[in-house]
Amino acid sequence: MGMIGGGKGAFIGAVHRIAAAMDGQMQLVCGAFSSNPETSKNSGKELYLDDDRVYGSFKEMIEKEVQLPEDQRMDVVAIVTPNHVHFEPARLALENGFHVICDKPMTFNTEEALELEKLVEKTGLVFALTHTYTGYPMIKQAREMITSGVFGQVRKVVVEYPQGWLSTPLERTGQTQASWRTDPAKSGKAGAVGDIGTHAENLAETITGLKVKELSADVSTFVEGRLLDDDANVLLRFDNGAKGVLHCSQISAGEENELNIRVYGEKGGIEWHQQEPNTMLVKWLDKPMEVYRTATGYLGETAAAHTRTPAGHPEGYLEAFANIYRNVAATIQARLEGREPEKQYLDFPTVHDGVRGMKFIDAVINSGKNNAAWTKIG
Amino acid sequence: MGMIGGGKGAFIGAVHRIAAAMDGQMQLVCGAFSSNPETSKNSGKELYLDDDRVYGSFKEMIEKEVQLPEDQRMDVVAIVTPNHVHFEPARLALENGFHVICDKPMTFNTEEALELEKLVEKTGLVFALTHTYTGYPMIKQAREMITSGVFGQVRKVVVEYPQGWLSTPLERTGQTQASWRTDPAKSGKAGAVGDIGTHAENLAETITGLKVKELSADVSTFVEGRLLDDDANVLLRFDNGAKGVLHCSQISAGEENELNIRVYGEKGGIEWHQQEPNTMLVKWLDKPMEVYRTATGYLGETAAAHTRTPAGHPEGYLEAFANIYRNVAATIQARLEGREPEKQYLDFPTVHDGVRGMKFIDAVINSGKNNAAWTKIG
Amino acid sequence: MGMIGGGKGAFIGAVHRIAAAMDGQMQLVCGAFSSNPETSKNSGKELYLDDDRVYGSFKEMIEKEVQLPEDQRMDVVAIVTPNHVHFEPARLALENGFHVICDKPMTFNTEEALELEKLVEKTGLVFALTHTYTGYPMIKQAREMITSGVFGQVRKVVVEYPQGWLSTPLERTGQTQASWRTDPAKSGKAGAVGDIGTHAENLAETITGLKVKELSADVSTFVEGRLLDDDANVLLRFDNGAKGVLHCSQISAGEENELNIRVYGEKGGIEWHQQEPNTMLVKWLDKPMEVYRTATGYLGETAAAHTRTPAGHPEGYLEAFANIYRNVAATIQARLEGREPEKQYLDFPTVHDGVRGMKFIDAVINSGKNNAAWTKIG
Amino acid sequence: MGMIGGGKGAFIGAVHRIAAAMDGQMQLVCGAFSSNPETSKNSGKELYLDDDRVYGSFKEMIEKEVQLPEDQRMDVVAIVTPNHVHFEPARLALENGFHVICDKPMTFNTEEALELEKLVEKTGLVFALTHTYTGYPMIKQAREMITSGVFGQVRKVVVEYPQGWLSTPLERTGQTQASWRTDPAKSGKAGAVGDIGTHAENLAETITGLKVKELSADVSTFVEGRLLDDDANVLLRFDNGAKGVLHCSQISAGEENELNIRVYGEKGGIEWHQQEPNTMLVKWLDKPMEVYRTATGYLGETAAAHTRTPAGHPEGYLEAFANIYRNVAATIQARLEGREPEKQYLDFPTVHDGVRGMKFIDAVINSGKNNAAWTKIG
Repeated sequence: MGMIGGGKGAFIGAVHRIAAAMDGQMQLVCGAFSSNPETSKNSGKELYLDDDRVYGSFKEMIEKEVQLPEDQRMDVVAIVTPNHVHFEPARLALENGFHVICDKPMTFNTEEALELEKLVEKTGLVFALTHTYTGYPMIKQAREMITSGVFGQVRKVVVEYPQGWLSTPLERTGQTQASWRTDPAKSGKAGAVGDIGTHAENLAETITGLKVKELSADVSTFVEGRLLDDDANVLLRFDNGAKGVLHCSQISAGEENELNIRVYGEKGGIEWHQQEPNTMLVKWLDKPMEVYRTATGYLGETAAAHTRTPAGHPEGYLEAFANIYRNVAATIQARLEGREPEKQYLDFPTVHDGVRGMKFIDAVINSGKNNAAWTKIG
Repeated sequence: MGMIGGGKGAFIGAVHRIAAAMDGQMQLVCGAFSSNPETSKNSGKELYLDDDRVYGSFKEMIEKEVQLPEDQRMDVVAIVTPNHVHFEPARLALENGFHVICDKPMTFNTEEALELEKLVEKTGLVFALTHTYTGYPMIKQAREMITSGVFGQVRKVVVEYPQGWLSTPLERTGQTQASWRTDPAKSGKAGAVGDIGTHAENLAETITGLKVKELSADVSTFVEGRLLDDDANVLLRFDNGAKGVLHCSQISAGEENELNIRVYGEKGGIEWHQQEPNTMLVKWLDKPMEVYRTATGYLGETAAAHTRTPAGHPEGYLEAFANIYRNVAATIQARLEGREPEKQYLDFPTVHDGVRGMKFIDAVINSGKNNAAWTKIG
Repeated sequence: MGMIGGGKGAFIGAVHRIAAAMDGQMQLVCGAFSSNPETSKNSGKELYLDDDRVYGSFKEMIEKEVQLPEDQRMDVVAIVTPNHVHFEPARLALENGFHVICDKPMTFNTEEALELEKLVEKTGLVFALTHTYTGYPMIKQAREMITSGVFGQVRKVVVEYPQGWLSTPLERTGQTQASWRTDPAKSGKAGAVGDIGTHAENLAETITGLKVKELSADVSTFVEGRLLDDDANVLLRFDNGAKGVLHCSQISAGEENELNIRVYGEKGGIEWHQQEPNTMLVKWLDKPMEVYRTATGYLGETAAAHTRTPAGHPEGYLEAFANIYRNVAATIQARLEGREPEKQYLDFPTVHDGVRGMKFIDAVINSGKNNAAWTKIG
Repeated sequence: MGMIGGGKGAFIGAVHRIAAAMDGQMQLVCGAFSSNPETSKNSGKELYLDDDRVYGSFKEMIEKEVQLPEDQRMDVVAIVTPNHVHFEPARLALENGFHVICDKPMTFNTEEALELEKLVEKTGLVFALTHTYTGYPMIKQAREMITSGVFGQVRKVVVEYPQGWLSTPLERTGQTQASWRTDPAKSGKAGAVGDIGTHAENLAETITGLKVKELSADVSTFVEGRLLDDDANVLLRFDNGAKGVLHCSQISAGEENELNIRVYGEKGGIEWHQQEPNTMLVKWLDKPMEVYRTATGYLGETAAAHTRTPAGHPEGYLEAFANIYRNVAATIQARLEGREPEKQYLDFPTVHDGVRGMKFIDAVINSGKNNAAWTKIG
C-alpha cells in the first residue's frame, strides 16, 4: 500500500495506517505524505519507510511505483488528502492499474465523481471509499435484519450526526482540521453537509437498502464569517414511501461525534449510536426491546465476521476502519488468486456510494439555497 | 373541583383525579363523568361522591353547582373529554364564574381557542391547560438555565415525540383511546400532530422562551384507512434565528412515549427525556457533561419547589401532572386570600399556550397539505 | 386512617399521606402528629382535619378513636415515627382493633418484633410494613419470573444500597433526618444497616423467594464521632445454596438512593435499579438481553395491576408506596365485605417481613462485632 | 518481537499481535506458536513469517535467536500460552537478555512469580504483564484524580468482574478456552479467581494506589464436576482503612465481560465500566455528576497520551492492549537511546503486579478453604 497525504499533523492518515496494520493484511510500503517534499520525507522516516519509497508528490509516486517490478510495487493507493486532492491522484492511480482506497466525500464535485465511477467500471479495479461507520459489525447486523423484512416495510428513518467542535470560529486559530474543512477551495461546496452529512446519508441508505428520492433541506451557517454550512436539517422521502429526518451539525455544542440512526418498520426497528457501537437496540411492537451486542452467538454471519474479540471486549472506530481495509485486502487477494472473495468480506463502500454522496451534497445545498424546496437526488 | 368526562374506561380522567388528590389541595366534589347519565352515576358512586353531586351532563352540573352556596360549590371545573367537548363546557364554566383546568389540545379548532382566550381575559378566571410535560421539575430547571443565558444564544432545538401504539389500525378494534384520537369529528383536523405534536411544540417554546416563527411539515398517514395523520416531520425556524427539528409519530413501532428535547446554545445546552424525567444532561463546549438530577441541592428554586421527595426517589408523570394542579390550587388560594401567589407556584400552562397550540396545528396541517411549504404560525 | 408522627418537618409522614391519597381508597381522618401537642395541632390544621380529631399523643388518639361509632372512627393507624416509637403505638392499635401500617425497620429490637408478630397472629388484623421498594411493579414481575423457574435455580444475588448523604457528620448540624437515624437511642443498634440494609435484604428475599441462611458482615463507621454504622459489606449464603453480596452505605459520596439488585440463575437473570424503576433488564445465556418496561402488554397480571398509566408514563417512588396502601385498603375492604381479596392485591410486606428484618439487623451487627464471623439469621 | 504460543485457534495470541501491530512500533519477526511443531510452522506461514524464524519450541526459539546478529534478532518475547507455560519461557528469555511481555496471571504459582521478580531485578530487563484493563485511558485518568486527592481519602471500593460464559460445563465440549482455564494442571489453583479476579484486584490497586491488606473470600464452584472455582465474593480491607467488595464470576448468566469499578472518597469518586470504556462517571457530594470522556480537552496528560483518535471515536479493548505494547516499545527504545522514557509512556503493569496477583490468588483460595477467614496478602 502507498499513501497519499497523511503527513505530520494530519488526523485521518494515521487512522488509515492503523486500520491497514491492524489485521496484518496490508503493509505500507511507500508514500507521498505531503505536497511539501521535506515534510513527506520526514513523515516517511518516522514510519520506518525506505527513503527511496518516500516521494515528493503523488504524481511522482505513481509514476515511479508503476515502474517497479510487480512483486515489489504497491498494490493499492490510499488517498487521505483534503477533498480537492482526491480526484487527481485517484484518476492517476486507476489509470496506472492501482486499486484505490479513498477518503470521503469522494471528490470535490459531482463531475469528478462521475468520471471516477466510469474509470472504475472501465478498469475493473477495486475502489473503496472509507465511509467508516458502515464498517461496524452492528451495521452489518442492522442491514441484514432490516432488509430481510423482519420489521416489515420501513416507514420512518431518523439519522443524526451532531458534533459541537466548530461551535466557535476554530478555523481562525489555524487549527488544521477546521481550516480546510471550512474552506470552499478545499472542501467543496459543503461544510458539515459534506463532511458528516454524507456519512449520515450513506448510513441510512446502506442500513435500509432504500434510496432517498427527494429531500428538503434547511442549511445554516451559525458561526459568523464561516464560509460553509455548519448545520443542516433535512426532511427525507425514500423510494419506498418511507419518510425521514436527517440532521447534521458542527455547532451542537457539547456533542462529540454522536452519529446515530433509528429505523422504524411496521413491526419494529432498530436504534444504533456510533459512540457505543457494540450495542444495537432492537424494538418490537409487542415484545420487550432487545439489546443486541457484538460478538455474541445470535448475530448473523456477516456481523460475526467483522469482530476480532469475544463479547464484552469493545471494538471501536479503528476496528470499523480496519474492517474496510481487511475486506479490500481480501477482495484483492481473491482476485490475485483468481477466485471469488468470501461472501462476508465483499462488504465495503464503493465508488457508487461515492457518487451517491456527491449527489446528496448537491441536492442538500441546492435545496438549502431554494428555501428548502423539495429536491431530487441525482 | 368538579370533573367533566373521565368516566369508566377513560384514561386521562383518572390521571386528573390522582393529580388533584396527590397534594391534598383539591378535592373532587362533583362530576358529569359521561354523556350517558347512567355511566356518570356509576362513575360517581365508585368515586365515593354524593349522589346529588353526580350530574347527567356538564350543562346540568354547571347550572346546579352555581346555585349552591359559595362555600359548598365547586371552585374549579376539570375538563377531561375528547377535544370536541372542550370548548362548550369551558365557556359555560367561565361564564358562570368557575376556574377551568382543561386537557389539551385546548379546543377543536383555533376559532374556539381564540374565543376562550378572550373569555379568560374578560373574566379574569384561572385557566390551566394540562401540558403535563412542562410540569416536570427538570423542565423548570432547563427553562431557568436556558433563558438565563448560561448557554449563550440558542442555535438549535431538536424535539421528538415518537410513539408506536398506533402502528396498526387499532381504532378498528374499538379501542377507546385510539378511536376518538383518529376520528376527525372528535379530534379535529389533526391526529398525532394534535395529540402529541402540540406537547412537543409547547415543550420547545416553554423551555427556550423562543417562539417558532415558521415551519415546514411533511405530514403522513402510514396506516391504511386512517383518517388523520400518524406521523409528521417538521423543520422549525425560531424568532431569534435558531433552527430546529420537531418530529412526532404514532407509528414508531417499539417506542412508548419517548418525548425528548435537546437545546444547543453557543456554549452548551441540555438534553432531557420524558421517560427518565428526573435526569437532565447538561452539555458544555469545553468541560465534562453534567448529569443534573431532581431534588438535589444545586437546582434552582423553582425546580426544587416541584418535587416532594429527596434525591433518588423518582417522581414521574403523575407528579408532573400534580404539579399543575398544585400550582392552580395555590394560585386560586392566593386570590381568595387577596394576595399574590408564591413566585414558584405561578407556573402552569395557560389559555395562551392553548391558543398557540391550535395555531401550531393549523400551521403544520396547512404546510403538510402544501407539500411542506414554509408556513407562519398564527 | 389515623397517623402517628409525620408532623411538620418530617419526611416520611408526607410520603405516607400522598400514598394514601393517591388512589382515593384511604382518607386521613385523624392524627397524633407529634409528641408536642401544639405541633400536632398545627400539623392537623394544615391537613384540613377537624380539630377534635387531632390528638396530643398516640395514646390519646387510640383511646378516643375506639370510642367513636364504628362508621366514624379510623380503620387503620399509620405509624411514621422514628424506630423507637413503633412498637408501643402498634401494640396499642392492634389491641384496640385497628389495622396497622408501620414504617420500617419494624421495631427498636427483635424482642418487640416477635411480640408484635404474636399480636398480629392473635388479633388477625392487617399489619403492613412499608418496605416501599417491593411495591414497584417491576419487582412483582421479577419475583414472578424468578420463582417460576424460567432462569433455572438461582446461583448468585448481588444487592446494593449505596447512598452518600451521610458522608459528612450531618447529624451535628441538627438536620432532623440525620439526627435520629444516627442516634442509638432512637434508631436502635444499627445505622445504615437498619435504615437501608433491611430494604436490601427484604428486596433480595422477596424477589427470589429464598432466605439468607447465614452471613458474614464487615460493618464500618467512617465518619468520626458517629455512633452507628454508616457502611456494611456482607457476604450472603442462601438456603438453596446460592451465594450473594449485599452492601449498603451512607458514605458512598455522590450516590443518591441507588438501591439495585441483580439475580443470576442457571439460564439467565434480572437486573433492576430503583432510580429507574420502570425498567428491568432480563438477561439470558444465549439470546439478547431484553428490556422489560412497566405497563406493557407482555408483563404478568400482578405487575400490570400495580401501574396506573400506560407505558412510557413513568411512575415512581410515591406510586410504589401507594401500591402498598392500595393493597392494604383492598384487603381490608375485602374483609369488611366478607370475601377474599383479589389475588393481585394481596401483595404487601407483613409483620413477618418485619421480624425477618430485625433478625437480619441482629445478624449483621453481631457478625460485624465478631470480625465478620459467619452468623445465622434468627 | 517473537511470540510463544498463540497458534491457530488461540484467542489471546491474535490479540497480542494486533496490539503490537497497531502503532507500528513492534514487528513480529519470529515465533514458537505451538508445542506441536507442525502447528507452529503453519501459524507462522499464515503470519507471513520467514520459515526459518518459525520454531518448534520456545527453547529452540530463544536459543537460536540469541545467536543471530543483534540487529536481526528479536528484542522482546511475548508469552501468550496458558499459565503453566509462562515461567519457563520467561526465565529463559530473561536469562538470554530478551525483554518479556507476558500474559496474566503471571505464573502457575507464587514461587515462580517470586523467582521471576528476582530475575527481572537482576537483569534489569523490561518485563510487562498484560493486565489489559489498566491500559485504558480512563483508568489513567481515574488513577490521577484519585491519587491526587481531589476526592479526599478513599473510603470504599467496589470492583466487579461478572462473566456468564462458563454457566454450563463448556469445558466438557472441548472448547479450548474453557478447557485449560478449568484445568488445575494448566491454570493453577484458581479458576475465575486467577483468570479474572486478578484483573479486578489489579484494577482496584492500580486505580487507588492502595494495597489490599487482608481479605475474606467465599469461593464457589457452581457447575457440577468443575475442578476449579467459578465464582468468588470477597470482602476487602485496604492499607489506609478503606473497605471494599470484590466479586468475580464466570456463572453470572447473561453477562459478557462486565468488569467495573466504583471508588468512593470523602468528597466524591468515580465509576467505570470496561464495556463502555471511553466514559467515566465522576461523582461529587454536592454538585452534579460529571461524565468524563476520552480524548477531550479536560483530561490529564497521561490519559490524553493513550488515545489515537478525537473525542467520540470510540477506542476499545485492542487499543488498551496496544497501549501496553506501545509503552513497552517506547521504554525499550528509550533504553536503546540511553535516555529516560517519556513520562506518560512509563505506564504498564510489571513483574511486581504479577507477584501481587499471585499472592492475591493464594489469599483468596486459602480464605475460601477456611470458610472465608480473614487472610493477609503476601
